[in-house]
Amino acid sequence: MMEENLIGWQKQPNSLNIQGEIEQAIAAITGEEVDLIGSGRTDRGVHALAQVANFKIHSEKLPIEKFAVALNSKLKNSIRIQSAEEVEESFHSRYAVHSKTYRYVIHNSQFGTAIYRELEYNFSIPLDVLKMQKAISYFIGEHDFSGFKASGTSAKNSVRTIYDAKVYQEGERVYIELTGNGFLYNMVRIISGTLLEVGIGKIQPEEIPAIIASKDRKKAGKTLPAHGLYLVKVEYEK
Amino acid sequence: MMEENLIGWQKQPNSLNIQGEIEQAIAAITGEEVDLIGSGRTDRGVHALAQVANFKIHSEKLPIEKFAVALNSKLKNSIRIQSAEEVEESFHSRYAVHSKTYRYVIHNSQFGTAIYRELEYNFSIPLDVLKMQKAISYFIGEHDFSGFKASGTSAKNSVRTIYDAKVYQEGERVYIELTGNGFLYNMVRIISGTLLEVGIGKIQPEEIPAIIASKDRKKAGKTLPAHGLYLVKVEYEK
Repeated sequence: MMEENLIGWQKQPNSLNIQGEIEQAIAAITGEEVDLIGSGRTDRGVHALAQVANFKIHSEKLPIEKFAVALNSKLKNSIRIQSAEEVEESFHSRYAVHSKTYRYVIHNSQFGTAIYRELEYNFSIPLDVLKMQKAISYFIGEHDFSGFKASGTSAKNSVRTIYDAKVYQEGERVYIELTGNGFLYNMVRIISGTLLEVGIGKIQPEEIPAIIASKDRKKAGKTLPAHGLYLVKVEYEK
Repeated sequence: MMEENLIGWQKQPNSLNIQGEIEQAIAAITGEEVDLIGSGRTDRGVHALAQVANFKIHSEKLPIEKFAVALNSKLKNSIRIQSAEEVEESFHSRYAVHSKTYRYVIHNSQFGTAIYRELEYNFSIPLDVLKMQKAISYFIGEHDFSGFKASGTSAKNSVRTIYDAKVYQEGERVYIELTGNGFLYNMVRIISGTLLEVGIGKIQPEEIPAIIASKDRKKAGKTLPAHGLYLVKVEYEK
């Protein structure tokens, strides 16, 4: 939610960002300046239910089990630490990621939701969820997702593996959920936009493999807006 | 949600209010100035999932089935009309109410929700839901709710009938739901605050009848904040 104008995860000068806010809270508690390493960036408007980040400190002023409480007392209530634990010095919250799960929430009703308008994407044309379910299954596996990244993105390698993918409906909400070893910039929002076109019959599920293979951004659907997207889970190699 | 600074239902000069916004939209569409009569006020921060309101117009410029679409096109997306229908001239959306249902949403987790912080009330002490369920059953029936209205409220008659009342839990959320023939000012928020004290063991369920009978505002719990409250349904006499 954007009331406090958080501009997303990444630190930028003169702006309210999650990384910077947490670094300041850590400094206030420990007296140490740290670099907070997140599992990845979330853009402005994206909701992180479970971001993971690591940092190094030298002091032992505060026992680890008190960290979450102490940090929350310093943070705005738009940022909540759920837990804190000590890890091996080699741990890196981005490099060690095994999988991430993202969810995209579409509010599929004629006039849309007013109350959840910053938490769900309003889309009024009725969606064919069965077709979307068929379509999303084609994304599972290892693919070159060059056609599903924001144009201008400079990732050298666009091959990613999707471990699990599903579409489900609860009342007026349609959920798209993807678990993979990594995601390119805007990848989930572009896959969701492509599935939306399947849901309204503009793309048939059987066309998805060819769209992926084309590596052509123009063949895929639109990038859906950030405010429907949630980072749900980050899992690590054991 | 308060980003746009809606101050609630009721019209007030120089302020963004739901009643005034809808009246302006009606005027823009029909060319007529109307008085929009709501089923009741909702305060700033309260979420109305299903408010009902009526107005009278003379023209028949627009068929009734086009009204909702036309009004939504004029309204901010923080206000959504769900449907519009023609009613008998005698209909009055406040006087004809048979029952209203309100829901209070408590997010009961140690550190609270950041994402839903304007839609749910964060409360960190674990609640005993079974005790709350027992306690809420005492509210069902006809009672003088003088002890459960905001002090200074000038309602002549504080007797209301609660038809149905329940507490239930889903994950980290505890829901309080009340259906009645009417509610005094802040009544749902005060009942919820009282149930919260039951949930943490400060009040025993069996004490509720005596608290109601005392008609003493000080015996009941605190008024919980507006942003956890939803107007869920308004039903009319058939």
